[in-house]
Amino acid sequence: MSKFFSTKHSKLIPYTPGEQPKDMKYIKLNTNESPYPPSEKAIAEASKQAELLRLYPDPECTSLREDIAAYYGVEKENVVLSNGSDEILNFAFIAYGDDSHPFVFPDITYGFYNVFAAVNNIPYEEIPLEEDFTIDFKKYCGINKNIVIANPNAPTGIFAPLTEIEKVAQSNPDNIVIVDEAYVDFGGETAITLTKKYDNIIVVQTFSKSRSMAGARLGFCIASKEICRDLNTIRYSVNPYNINRMTMAAGSAAINDEEYFQRNRLEIIETREKTRKALLDMGFEVLPSKTNFLFAKSDRIGGEELYRKLRENGILVRHFTSERIAEYNRITIGTPEDMETFINTVKGLIL
Amino acid sequence: MSKFFSTKHSKLIPYTPGEQPKDMKYIKLNTNESPYPPSEKAIAEASKQAELLRLYPDPECTSLREDIAAYYGVEKENVVLSNGSDEILNFAFIAYGDDSHPFVFPDITYGFYNVFAAVNNIPYEEIPLEEDFTIDFKKYCGINKNIVIANPNAPTGIFAPLTEIEKVAQSNPDNIVIVDEAYVDFGGETAITLTKKYDNIIVVQTFSKSRSMAGARLGFCIASKEICRDLNTIRYSVNPYNINRMTMAAGSAAINDEEYFQRNRLEIIETREKTRKALLDMGFEVLPSKTNFLFAKSDRIGGEELYRKLRENGILVRHFTSERIAEYNRITIGTPEDMETFINTVKGLIL
Repeated sequence: MSKFFSTKHSKLIPYTPGEQPKDMKYIKLNTNESPYPPSEKAIAEASKQAELLRLYPDPECTSLREDIAAYYGVEKENVVLSNGSDEILNFAFIAYGDDSHPFVFPDITYGFYNVFAAVNNIPYEEIPLEEDFTIDFKKYCGINKNIVIANPNAPTGIFAPLTEIEKVAQSNPDNIVIVDEAYVDFGGETAITLTKKYDNIIVVQTFSKSRSMAGARLGFCIASKEICRDLNTIRYSVNPYNINRMTMAAGSAAINDEEYFQRNRLEIIETREKTRKALLDMGFEVLPSKTNFLFAKSDRIGGEELYRKLRENGILVRHFTSERIAEYNRITIGTPEDMETFINTVKGLIL
Repeated sequence: MSKFFSTKHSKLIPYTPGEQPKDMKYIKLNTNESPYPPSEKAIAEASKQAELLRLYPDPECTSLREDIAAYYGVEKENVVLSNGSDEILNFAFIAYGDDSHPFVFPDITYGFYNVFAAVNNIPYEEIPLEEDFTIDFKKYCGINKNIVIANPNAPTGIFAPLTEIEKVAQSNPDNIVIVDEAYVDFGGETAITLTKKYDNIIVVQTFSKSRSMAGARLGFCIASKEICRDLNTIRYSVNPYNINRMTMAAGSAAINDEEYFQRNRLEIIETREKTRKALLDMGFEVLPSKTNFLFAKSDRIGGEELYRKLRENGILVRHFTSERIAEYNRITIGTPEDMETFINTVKGLIL
């Protein structure tokens, strides 16, 4: 760092995105991207907007907020959009975290939460997952702190019933409960219904996974109107034109193409279950997943070794070095053909 | 705000973007957009990327950083990209501001600097512009504080010679000097050359104005490699995938289409000078502009009244209510036809 860098960041360790090697063509099962292109309507609308780029986007994002609100049965004042869901998560940390309002989340979860806390100088605590990688929600009840729960959780893939989320929100009425639903469309159930009953729940979702738009950068949250006003105060103090015209138009087209969305997500779920079975058949331990990835380990090969050997064979999966999960790999669900190649390669490595 | 909103933001007043009324079709001379579309090559490249949206963008933005570096004669490690230039400005406030490192900027300048300071709880001071709206750079020399200078300044349009910027950087060696060059392509001179000599200068530019890409959201900075590392530490702690695929590709195409860029910016400069002369002929006081806008007032009509009457006549200009400039309006340079309509409408109102 330069000599000018504020000492308040001296311990800051940034987030590490999944690798994007350019040395050869890989089967990319490492960043939870969809194997399918976005809706053709989204592609067409984005292209149309490319011709209008001289004009600023609508900073209020009215049209897309209306579409998302209609889809989820809320009002547009319950929706705030962001440049990927990371941005709205960061806005929430900025809005609600301070020395007397720390954030709490599991020790094994999306690796960005502790970075958001650190960059904003907000204290945080990590509560260890249980031995079986589930969350014991009792540990989050009545703690009087801001809470982030990824549901389904990452990289475990495990989904917790909404009744647990509800207890956490109910028992921490003076604090925010963020439910990060990046993967909810692959078999989970959204907590959006709970935002009507609890004024402290913020549901965060993304177009990156189930709507095949990771490259467009579009996330959003649904929460009470008061919370959305707070988050817009931050948004208008940081980056009011955060959604570009092309992404905004693609987002509307994508959310209105329900048939395509359903077909894709069901296909991914089906491929996931087939892949899971194949891994189980090879003796892998595979956590139950409601996401577009599997989290698995084998007694026959170490986590790091499997990751490395797959990479040598042109397949990228995601390996995390933190101790509790070092024997696992996170495997994104690709096309049926991708997963066949993956399974056959694994077979070759361990059998 | 909700009861959860951190009290550290209790005095936060967000930025107000220029209005985007939807009640009728206006001649939009209020947000400094280009009247010309982006390069056709940029449109084509953005559209191509729309088909690849399922994949995350390159978080390192290597290709576009290389193109920008080549264009400005620096290395890619001297370039950091952002989702509009607002984002990189905010990153710099986060990286370098704290209680012992306040920010200083003119009282009349881009209205976002004080918001960036406020949202990050960084102290700031505003130094009044001189009577004639120029900056007295002596007031910024040797003050041992972080400094932001928009050059050309907004909304005045006035450009200051680089020798003044150099004195400020040289005399504040332990602090950052941000030179916000959003409008530099319309007749100013960039301080990028100075970044090779001074390790404390950060030059910020945008594709929004001179490259007709306000709707794509693309800004960048050029600075020493150490500073770029700092800013990337913040970027990777906040939003590593901040540039979407379409904008990234459009940016490369735009910066490589030099002929189109030159033609457009020269046309806008020519239209600006014609418009300036017409306003002077009508008795307006018009500040000397090196931007794509004019800042003007008339003895015959108040600033707010002119703004309002133009609006009634289907023309939007930008009016600021702050006392020192309340008699002025900021008029974006549109097409020659737009400006003829504007001039004729003003004539009808005041003659």
